[in-house]
This record gives sequence, structure tokens and C-alpha cells, in this order.
Amino acid sequence: MSGRLAPPSLLLALVVSSFCPATSRSGDETRNQLLTREKMMRVGGQLVLTWEEELANQRLRALKEAEMHEALSTGNILPSMHFFQAKSLIEKSEVFNILKKMPKGAALHVHDFSITSPDWLVKNATYRPHCYFCFTRRGTPQFRFAHPTTPTPKPAECPQWVLLEKFRKGLRNVSEFDNSLLRNLTLMTENPHVTYADQDAIWAKFETIFFVLGGLVSYAPVFRDYLSQGLEEFYQDNVLHLEIRASLHPVYELDGTIYSQEWLVRTYEEVAHNFAKTHPGFIGIKLIFSDHRTKNESLIKKSIQTAMDLRVKFPGIVAGFDLVGREDTGYTLYDYREALMIPASRGVHLPYFFHAGETDWEGTSVDRNLLDAVILNSTRIGHGFALSKHPAVLAEAWKKDIPIEVCPISNQVLKLVSDLRNHPAAVMMATGYPMVISSDDPAAFGARGLSYDFYEAFMGIGGMSADLRTLKQLAINSIRYSTLSETKKKSAMETWEERWQKFVAGLARGPR
Amino acid sequence: MSGRLAPPSLLLALVVSSFCPATSRSGDETRNQLLTREKMMRVGGQLVLTWEEELANQRLRALKEAEMHEALSTGNILPSMHFFQAKSLIEKSEVFNILKKMPKGAALHVHDFSITSPDWLVKNATYRPHCYFCFTRRGTPQFRFAHPTTPTPKPAECPQWVLLEKFRKGLRNVSEFDNSLLRNLTLMTENPHVTYADQDAIWAKFETIFFVLGGLVSYAPVFRDYLSQGLEEFYQDNVLHLEIRASLHPVYELDGTIYSQEWLVRTYEEVAHNFAKTHPGFIGIKLIFSDHRTKNESLIKKSIQTAMDLRVKFPGIVAGFDLVGREDTGYTLYDYREALMIPASRGVHLPYFFHAGETDWEGTSVDRNLLDAVILNSTRIGHGFALSKHPAVLAEAWKKDIPIEVCPISNQVLKLVSDLRNHPAAVMMATGYPMVISSDDPAAFGARGLSYDFYEAFMGIGGMSADLRTLKQLAINSIRYSTLSETKKKSAMETWEERWQKFVAGLARGPR
Repeated sequence: MSGRLAPPSLLLALVVSSFCPATSRSGDETRNQLLTREKMMRVGGQLVLTWEEELANQRLRALKEAEMHEALSTGNILPSMHFFQAKSLIEKSEVFNILKKMPKGAALHVHDFSITSPDWLVKNATYRPHCYFCFTRRGTPQFRFAHPTTPTPKPAECPQWVLLEKFRKGLRNVSEFDNSLLRNLTLMTENPHVTYADQDAIWAKFETIFFVLGGLVSYAPVFRDYLSQGLEEFYQDNVLHLEIRASLHPVYELDGTIYSQEWLVRTYEEVAHNFAKTHPGFIGIKLIFSDHRTKNESLIKKSIQTAMDLRVKFPGIVAGFDLVGREDTGYTLYDYREALMIPASRGVHLPYFFHAGETDWEGTSVDRNLLDAVILNSTRIGHGFALSKHPAVLAEAWKKDIPIEVCPISNQVLKLVSDLRNHPAAVMMATGYPMVISSDDPAAFGARGLSYDFYEAFMGIGGMSADLRTLKQLAINSIRYSTLSETKKKSAMETWEERWQKFVAGLARGPR
Repeated sequence: MSGRLAPPSLLLALVVSSFCPATSRSGDETRNQLLTREKMMRVGGQLVLTWEEELANQRLRALKEAEMHEALSTGNILPSMHFFQAKSLIEKSEVFNILKKMPKGAALHVHDFSITSPDWLVKNATYRPHCYFCFTRRGTPQFRFAHPTTPTPKPAECPQWVLLEKFRKGLRNVSEFDNSLLRNLTLMTENPHVTYADQDAIWAKFETIFFVLGGLVSYAPVFRDYLSQGLEEFYQDNVLHLEIRASLHPVYELDGTIYSQEWLVRTYEEVAHNFAKTHPGFIGIKLIFSDHRTKNESLIKKSIQTAMDLRVKFPGIVAGFDLVGREDTGYTLYDYREALMIPASRGVHLPYFFHAGETDWEGTSVDRNLLDAVILNSTRIGHGFALSKHPAVLAEAWKKDIPIEVCPISNQVLKLVSDLRNHPAAVMMATGYPMVISSDDPAAFGARGLSYDFYEAFMGIGGMSADLRTLKQLAINSIRYSTLSETKKKSAMETWEERWQKFVAGLARGPR
């Protein structure tokens, strides 16, 4: 795997170059030298393209430039618009359609219950037999599959459970009802700026979505099929490997059986294994066991123990541990420091994959999660949105070769940044900081797979400078920084390279 | 003037530190070390505060923290809101009221006809005798002072000129009319997101403002008083020196006399001189002669010649040359390269103060203005909004000690960024890049002096980390990077230090 200077050398190059006066050269020489230096520094800037890749790059650049010029003339570039409003326009973009075909490698930052389109949940899961639903007193729908002999589940929060099959029969307009269910499973809305006044509003709805779909996806048969369908959607989007933040919440059967976390891990493994059998080139999945950062430290200590146990029992699939949920309102890594030091104190290596720096609140205790993630040797950093504001932490993270998992659409939808050209990853990409692109919770954001996020990264974050080198490096990074073993990485790279060559050949040839 | 590491040493420190492994130290040691390193790197981080400054800083930090906690609990921090909506809330802030009292040094980036409140223009200028107005066929008001013997000026674009004095007498509601005039002289509006759909819309209105006020401020008596009033507003805001981008457009008298650019420069000098006589501590003004970047190169060549001539004739006040207007749609510095090389080719030193990087369009020809500004040894860079996306240009600019003139409110109002916590100067401030804070066109943006921009920089761009050190360094920078002679800088620093000590003493004492 090529294309990356070791960070100290890069910084050293910067220093050395800053000692070599440019004044002795002509203006144009200095100009070209600086332009070349920046080109080389960027993510992918060190890659040397083949003749065919150069041709493909020319075509891609031409399409990108045409789209940029169109945007320049209207003053509106899609990554500056809210994704909910830009989505249908992105789908018309030729660049987007190329990105869909591009083998993107792996999705390293996605959450368990947001990888599959909500349409599938409505059209498939809620149409299965024994599916009950009700509205809580706050008007939020809840689902539950129940056995025919004990037809009405009775969780306290729901006044009246109705069998969906029967309920739909009584409806005049079923598709209207189905659409109303759909609206409870996605953040998508026509006018997001009005619907979600601030981060509190959007996070409230975001968390409600997981509450709503909980009763569906924690039903064992749906659980299996949801995962399989999610893998299918990523596979269709040319993603061959996923590393899933998994909460491992209890899964139930009609007869009242509740499955353990071990059962869940085994089932993840099974489903992925079966999926690979019917999907050539598919590599697999890894799980990052993730607890919620609203929990107190004693609960987190238990989860750390669970994570260690699971890794011993399932070394092939359980990759490590993370903390999820809204960073701004949750406990900090420093609050959990005792719990997080347990593995090291016992001589156990539990890899961490911390969400950190998913905040606009510079200098607060939450903002220090980045610092602690780096000190705790996080294998990767989820988001790292605030990292560019922390040059010393950044240098340390770079030295440790900790990549950031950039999720552009997530950051925009959750109101960290509006115009994605201002996403801090633009600075990181320009400097060549190791990164991968991921989609976080595509289902909740109205996205699918990785292509929409790649579009935002390529057209918005990367500006005019991002080209085929950038895309290639991002795809390579996704395998390089995955938790696959070295052997598996090698074969994954081979599979990816084969597909990449086909993709490049098609792109170089142009439309036929 | 203290508090700044030479850039290569800083980069070297970064490299050296990245070679020193932190793993041998305990987590908490590493943590403190990284926190300290970041604190030291920041703008102002090297300053050592006096005992009294430490006290003042404690009080300032307490007020800032209280305001931040309030913002955290509501989810809305003022710099994340549009300035038009935040303005009245900012005025209630205790931090803002401290910033108003703070001696801020110099305003290094303001434009000639946007330094004075539009209220003054309406309440003072348009109430003067002989003031005519009309509406163009597009409905834009135009003003013109005219001699009683030739009462109606007849520029082609205006169908019917009316004497304001007479017109107002016939009105039932004069203040309503005056408010309508005011709305033509400011971008302020209740719902800016609706009023200005995109950059094209806001720039169109922005340029119209200068068209509207042209007839008022180019009338010699108003011209003098407008400038004097502008200096007064900055002086009241504790700003003692201004460097004004001046277009030197023709100024007229009632009798039809049109004054030359030399007259204008002399008048600027005179007004500032008289102002200084009655305003203790006031240092003065400098002019940066500025042409419009919509003009073709042959016209710019003439302006370069004019700039050189003016600098020879008025070395005490004409500081150099700049190009103004919307960067995204204008000619680039590279387009003008022949013109801009003229002074050097003749062995003449004409200092440049280029607007550059006032764009979100990374990698375009416009975005290269930054590169060319640095190659052309621009003394300072106006905005430099895109600089953090260009690490090699940034390193070169840092080596040359070229500061950026950060204008937060301008960048937000003109739609480069919405949440000012995402302003790229946050990264630059964290890294210690040399910068000053300025207000660009405060009158058009509904601001006044520098305090509103300092508020956005202190609370938004600087995050929780910005403290009294940051503010002190920003004020020092404004004198250090001014075009005052070394002797004048020294005396300016003395004046500023005296006022700073009083300010600090008052702040340390707290409210009485």
C-alpha cells in the first residue's frame, strides 16, 4: 500500500522548504513549485497513475469541471446545500454516477441500525405476520412481533397494540399510512432548516428513530434480514467490507426467547458468511462493540469487560470498543478514564475506535475527547471534526498514524457545518492527513452506501483539487486502516485492485 | 513587540516534538503536555501576563464561561447565528461590553465608504441643504447635491430629481421615509436567509449600497464629515488608527468643481490631522489605494502608475495598493500579473495589500489569488479565508510573516461561512498564524468599529481557548502589522499600552 509520507518527514519537508528562500527564483517558477508541492501533499497526491488511470482522470476532471462551472454560474454548488435538498440533484450528476460505480473499498464508520434503507423496513419488516404496532402517549410509533397465542404485547409505555396486518386491511389509503411510518424512520424532510431549529431538535428526532425501529430490528428474523439487506445495499454501492459499531442490544423471538450478546455476534458472523457465499468479492464485516456515552462509569466498566470477553471468544469479528451517542451531551472519555484503562492495566489489548471531536464547542471538556482518544491510542477516530483546531493533538495523532473517519453528510445533517466546502476535513485533505470517508447512519440521513458521502467529499470537501488520485487513496485507506489481518488486507487489496482496474478501464473508455 | 515565535522555529518545534515519543510518560503527563503545547501555540499563547492581567483574565474567563454555559444549555451560541439576528443579543453580553472598552489598536481592513453608520448619512447628510434625490428606473434611490441656480441635476439614469428638503415637508411620516432610505444603505434585514438566497443576491445588494451612497459621500463637505464621523465611531470603539482601502473616486462641489485624487488624499490627511488634534491618543490613518477587480488590465496598469505617483507625493499616508470587489467574479491577480510587476520592474517598491482567498471555491483560478498574493509579497492579506486549505502557500506566507486580516462578520454576511465557529481562522488562531481582526464594511453589515467582530472572533473563532492573551496579541498585531513607521509604531505601542493598563486595571477590579 503506497502513497503516504510518514508524518514527521512531511512536517520536516515543510520546515526544510520554509528554509529554502524562493526569492532567487522567478515568480512563475515559485508559483509552479508551490502548486506542485500542494498537489503532492494532498491525500492521494503521491500516487502515480497508470496511463489508463490518467485517461480516466481526464474524463472525470472534465465532468467535474463542467459540473463546477454550472454551479459557479448559478452560484449554488450541491455540497453547499443541505443534503435533503441536494439529494435528488446529486442523483442527476454524472460524477455521482461514476462514484456509484467506483469500488470504494470498505465502510469503516457505520452504525448497526442505520445501514439499511427505511423503505425496506416499512415494505418488508412491517408487512411480516405477527407485527404489532402502537403509538406511545407522545405519539411515537412502536413495533413488536408477538406470538399468536399471546397476541397483545403490553409494554407499559403503549396504551393499545394493534396487529398491523389487520389494521392495514381497514385502511383506505395504505401507502399514505406506510409513508407516515417511513417519516418516523428517517430525518429526511423537505425543509430541514425549519423542521430542525437546532442540534437539540435534530438529535431528539435522531434518537427517536432508533427507539421506533428497535422493536422491528430486534426481532430475530428481521435482525438477520436487516443486516443482510444492509450488506446488499453497500455491496450494490461497490463496498466490499463493513466495520459496524454494534450495540448488541437483546434480540427476541416470537416465543419470548431473548438472545445473548454472544448469539448476536455469532449471528452477525453467520449472516456475513452466508452473504459472502452469494456475493463474489465480498470480504466481510467486523464489529466494534459500542456502548452509549450517557451511561455511568460503572456500567461502562462492565461493557469494557464484555468487549474483552467477546474479543477473546470471537477474535475474527469483534474488533474493539467505542462509545456512541451525542458527544456534546454525553460523558467524556476523561470521565471514563478508569474504565478505559482497565484492559491496559491487565495487559490486554482492546483496540479503541473512539468517536471524538464531533463538536463545534472548542476548548470544552467534550472537545478534549480528541486528546484522550489519541492518548488512549484509538485505532481510528470517528469524525475527528474538531481535530484541525488542535495542532498538537493532530501532530501526535499523525505520528501514531490514527486516521479520521470523515462522515460529511452526517456532520451537515446533525448541524456541525452547513456548507460542506467549509468542512474541516478540507484542511486535513489538503495536508494529506490519513482519512477514510464513511456514511455513519445513511438510512437515517436518506443516503445509501457510501456514494453520497463520496460525492460530498469529492465535490465539496476536496474542492477542484480532488481528482482520481484522491478517490483512489481514500479507497486504499479504507482497506489499509481496516481491522482486517495483514493477510486478509492483502487479498482484499487484490480484489479491490481487480475491480478498480475494470472501473478505470470503463471510465477511461467513456460512455458507449 | 513580543509574543511570536519565528515560523520556522515553530514548525521545527512541531517536528522535534513529534520525534519525542510520549509513550514513556504517563497518560496524565502526556495530556498536560499536549494541552500546554496547544496553549503555547495559539495566537497570544507566548504572552506572559502580569499579575493584574491574570486577575483581569480570570474575570473575563468567568464571564465568558457563564455565557458559554448559557449557550450550551440553549444549544445556541451567538456566533453560530447570523449576525443580523445575533446583534441585539450580542449587545446584551457582558463580554461584548468589555470588548467595547478594550483598546483594540488599529483597524487594518476597512473600506472607505463603509466606516460610518448609515444612520448618520440619513440623519445628517440627507438633511443638508441642496440634497436632491430620485429613483432610478430600477427603483434605486440616488442622491446629488446641486447648486440653487441649477437646481435639477440630470444624470441620464434618473427620470426625476426631487429636492429632499421640499419633499420631506410634503410627507406625513418622515421617519418612515427616513427608514426606507436607511434600508437602502445597509444589508441589515430581519430574515437574511430569506432576503439573500445566495451570494449573488447579497453581492448585488451590497454593490447597490455603494451606488446609492455615492452621490452623498462624494459631495466634498459630506466627504469630509463622513470621514470624520467614521473616525469618531472607531475612536469611540477604542480604535486609534485606521488603514483604509480607498477608491479615491471623484469628489464634487456644488459649483461643479470635481476634485482630483490628489485633493482627496490631501483631504484625508487634513481631516485625520484635525481629528487627532481633538482626540487624544488618536494615531491617524493610512490609505491603501484600491481599484476594482472588474477592470481590464490596461486600466489597472494606469492605477498602478497612480499608486506609485501618490506614494511618492504622499509617503506619509499612501501605504500601497489593493484590488477590491467580489473576488469570485473578478479578474485574478494572475490575470493582472503584468500590471502588478511594473513597480518591481522599475525598481520601485509599491506595497501590496491584496484581498485574496475570499472564496469557498477551492482549486479554482480565483482561489490561486492567495498563491499570487504571497508570491507578490503582499504586505498583508485581506481575508485569506481559504489559506488554511493551502498548506504550502500558508508555510510560504508564514515564512514571509504575512498576516491575514480576518473579518468574521463580513465573511458570514457575504455567505462564506454560517457558523463562525467553523471559520477557518479558528485553525489559524490555534496554530498561532499572524492575524488581525477587522470589520471590512461595518456600516453595511450593521456593525460599528471593531467590537462586534472582536466578539465573534473571541467567542466563536477562538472557542473556549481564547482569553485575554488572545485579545492582547490581536491588539498588538494590529500595530505591529500596520504600515506605521518604526518610530510611529513605537509611540503607538506606548499609547496603546497605557490604555491597555487602564483597561486591565478596570477589568481586574470588576464592576463597582
